[in-house]
Amino acid sequence: MLKKQKIPNATLDRLPLYFKYFKQSEDNGIDRVSSREISEALDIDSATIRRDFSYFGELGRKGYGYNVHALVKFFSEQVQGTGMKNVILIGVGNLGSALLNYNFTKIHDKIKIAVAFDIDQHIIGQTINGVEVKDICELESVVQDIQAEVAILTVPGQVGVDLSSKLEALGIKGILNFTPEKLAVSNEVTVHNIDLSVEMQALLFYMKHNN
Amino acid sequence: MLKKQKIPNATLDRLPLYFKYFKQSEDNGIDRVSSREISEALDIDSATIRRDFSYFGELGRKGYGYNVHALVKFFSEQVQGTGMKNVILIGVGNLGSALLNYNFTKIHDKIKIAVAFDIDQHIIGQTINGVEVKDICELESVVQDIQAEVAILTVPGQVGVDLSSKLEALGIKGILNFTPEKLAVSNEVTVHNIDLSVEMQALLFYMKHNN
Repeated sequence: MLKKQKIPNATLDRLPLYFKYFKQSEDNGIDRVSSREISEALDIDSATIRRDFSYFGELGRKGYGYNVHALVKFFSEQVQGTGMKNVILIGVGNLGSALLNYNFTKIHDKIKIAVAFDIDQHIIGQTINGVEVKDICELESVVQDIQAEVAILTVPGQVGVDLSSKLEALGIKGILNFTPEKLAVSNEVTVHNIDLSVEMQALLFYMKHNN
Repeated sequence: MLKKQKIPNATLDRLPLYFKYFKQSEDNGIDRVSSREISEALDIDSATIRRDFSYFGELGRKGYGYNVHALVKFFSEQVQGTGMKNVILIGVGNLGSALLNYNFTKIHDKIKIAVAFDIDQHIIGQTINGVEVKDICELESVVQDIQAEVAILTVPGQVGVDLSSKLEALGIKGILNFTPEKLAVSNEVTVHNIDLSVEMQALLFYMKHNN
């Protein structure tokens, strides 16, 4: 279904927002949405929405709107691939704990943190929201046992950099990087950076330009 | 210095990344960077970088690169405006605590959380990383006293929605929204949404398209 042409990064950035919107609409029993409704809900202009969707073939019809179920199915297929992905989380501090308590499955039933790691003996052995915290020494054996593909890094910056090349060697294919550092991985590993100070900076930029 | 033409959202989204890169370069004693160096560090193609910078007038010269100090100054001016912004944080759970412990001033010396709020009597009165946690009942008087302009919402979704219209009435101009809900504010308030499940979804999309 996905055309082979290169999808712009700006479009890819919006796909999770679209997915979330369609999933919520479906949960609310809505069958069909117009690009204007999407536009109002997500604050993205209609022309951009129509252009984004043009990369995915015929998902909507003019004057009819988009079929919510078909779109949820389409977006799900885009991420599910071969099925469940085992996710590990490294660093059970405040942010790591927040993520462990976060209900990812609400938005996507294939996302589940399987196991967490830390170096602190007071935390190791605890179970947070059903996820066991293991000693980081066990990283190698556990990642291979459960064939984890995705890692969430909520550790101090330099620790994350040091860990990242190890994670790549262990077969991790995607990293959600909450450290402010650039990780030491090849192009084979997809990294999505979330730097909270950059997000704060972004808010201030938008405030400035909203005036 | 900023041209009056409308800057695309995709460009605005990248500004904080540019700012962070230039700030780090300056901290490392680097005077000048090329668009290729920026491209490699941030994984954004050079043409996009040059186009983004074209919105801000003559910040670089062909074959010479960009002056790091001038750019840091430019970006700082973009966000600083009239000076220090008082930031409040509402909801001192794991994520709120993580943000209180986060050193925002590392990237921008005008960002400082002035005060935090919660409803839990066990947390109220504590000081986290120098920030006092006050009773949410004091929200109105404190926000007016310190003339807070920015709020960080790390509360459950519906609580955030209910609080948001109150915050607007109190004069808050920008909200960093960590709830998964759409806030109930007018266009006068700039909202920057960070939904952690959307970020996880984004990573899976990118992994899919990186293959």
